[in-house]
Amino acid sequence: MRIARFSIDGNVAFGAVEGEGPDGLVLDIIKGIPYTDFELSGTKVPLSKVRLLPPVLPNKVVAVGRNYAEHAAELGNEVPEAPLTFFKPTTSVIGPGDAIEYPSFSEELHYEAELAVVIGRMCREVPRERVKDVVFGYTCANDVTARDVQKREKQWARAKGFDTSCPLGPWVETDLDPADVTIQCTVNGEQRQLGRTSDMIRSIEDLVVHISEAMTLLPGDVILTGTPAGVGPLNVGDEVAVTIEGIGTLTNKVIKRG
Amino acid sequence: MRIARFSIDGNVAFGAVEGEGPDGLVLDIIKGIPYTDFELSGTKVPLSKVRLLPPVLPNKVVAVGRNYAEHAAELGNEVPEAPLTFFKPTTSVIGPGDAIEYPSFSEELHYEAELAVVIGRMCREVPRERVKDVVFGYTCANDVTARDVQKREKQWARAKGFDTSCPLGPWVETDLDPADVTIQCTVNGEQRQLGRTSDMIRSIEDLVVHISEAMTLLPGDVILTGTPAGVGPLNVGDEVAVTIEGIGTLTNKVIKRG
Repeated sequence: MRIARFSIDGNVAFGAVEGEGPDGLVLDIIKGIPYTDFELSGTKVPLSKVRLLPPVLPNKVVAVGRNYAEHAAELGNEVPEAPLTFFKPTTSVIGPGDAIEYPSFSEELHYEAELAVVIGRMCREVPRERVKDVVFGYTCANDVTARDVQKREKQWARAKGFDTSCPLGPWVETDLDPADVTIQCTVNGEQRQLGRTSDMIRSIEDLVVHISEAMTLLPGDVILTGTPAGVGPLNVGDEVAVTIEGIGTLTNKVIKRG
Repeated sequence: MRIARFSIDGNVAFGAVEGEGPDGLVLDIIKGIPYTDFELSGTKVPLSKVRLLPPVLPNKVVAVGRNYAEHAAELGNEVPEAPLTFFKPTTSVIGPGDAIEYPSFSEELHYEAELAVVIGRMCREVPRERVKDVVFGYTCANDVTARDVQKREKQWARAKGFDTSCPLGPWVETDLDPADVTIQCTVNGEQRQLGRTSDMIRSIEDLVVHISEAMTLLPGDVILTGTPAGVGPLNVGDEVAVTIEGIGTLTNKVIKRG
């Protein structure tokens, strides 16, 4: 099931995405919060009439660096011995169609297409065989990075945590098998990244075990699983799209910060 | 004014701390959220009858590394050219008297006494001369760190973001001049750190300008301003206390994670 979060006439709700094609999609409004048990209301609105929001409101976003060998190599980095984990703050999260604001303190903004894991249950110290039980679903993410700032500042709070640096969407797919799907990034329609999740150095199970060993994960928390090779610059005016097989496409435009 | 957050009989409220001495303190219950305008209710409860909670519920905690030259040197680090900023997640925040759980994946837990700045207004790109207007007040923090994990993992999400790694409290002092106050850390009553905020490499103004250049700060967000020299180990059973002149003392005990 594809579950979106949206606003219509000033109200915010979750809805199950039904139908096919860009014009045929409708949202069946969900009663309550979808992470655990929920009901479809049967009340349907066309997707074209709503504004899609980030599909989850995370308490935290935990991201993983250098999780694809070719990407680590393209930036001259070794694959780290332990997974390299960092946070993106909730103030960095935007939804599909929202603008990525080019930060004033960077001259080298990069896209990074990533598979995002959405947590459905509060959990800590999750055993490998229980990971599937705590995952609600998957969405597309762009780990937008001020590459020049990342090089200057040893911890990445500013380089990867500035406002609008974490587009998520367009919705959460709860039925995906994420073991081997394609991740693609295009800029203005031209392909820049094309990878497969099967090339991750650490699997989703590895990452959930590793992160939850240290910290409680809450419903709606998001884990970004790293980007494949092909990262490169974004400029003001660009339209960047992350497409993950079986999920959909997350599109955002880059604007000058106003 | 000293503003605490507390629970009594299952209800959570903010209160203004009045009176003197460990037994004479009372809380005048605040109507609403104290970050902007608020009223004292006149209803008072003795501090001894409540459980103090973390004095704020941050959306994010932004911390700064190596902001005292002697502390950078004691760990063999240079003072960074740009402030080194990282996040601690909300799941790491605990209050005064709460237990610090020794993490299962570390054998070298360290205390780090720090002055915490509490933000009172939503803000971004704060000019230096407006910093005082966005600060709500100050509290004590302990940036508890798994030092061995910090050495192994280049980004510090696990080393400094595990559950219970961010004690805050006991309350927020809104009237402090933070320019030159002492910060002290004791373990089981023995002094381990004694510094002055005047030795910070980057001032509070510098830090708010630098961080808010990148990201929106929200009411209740917290900035940890770095630790003075003298960091060292914590063991299960230890009682660690952070005292900041003009604020008070934040005490926490270290327990084995259960």
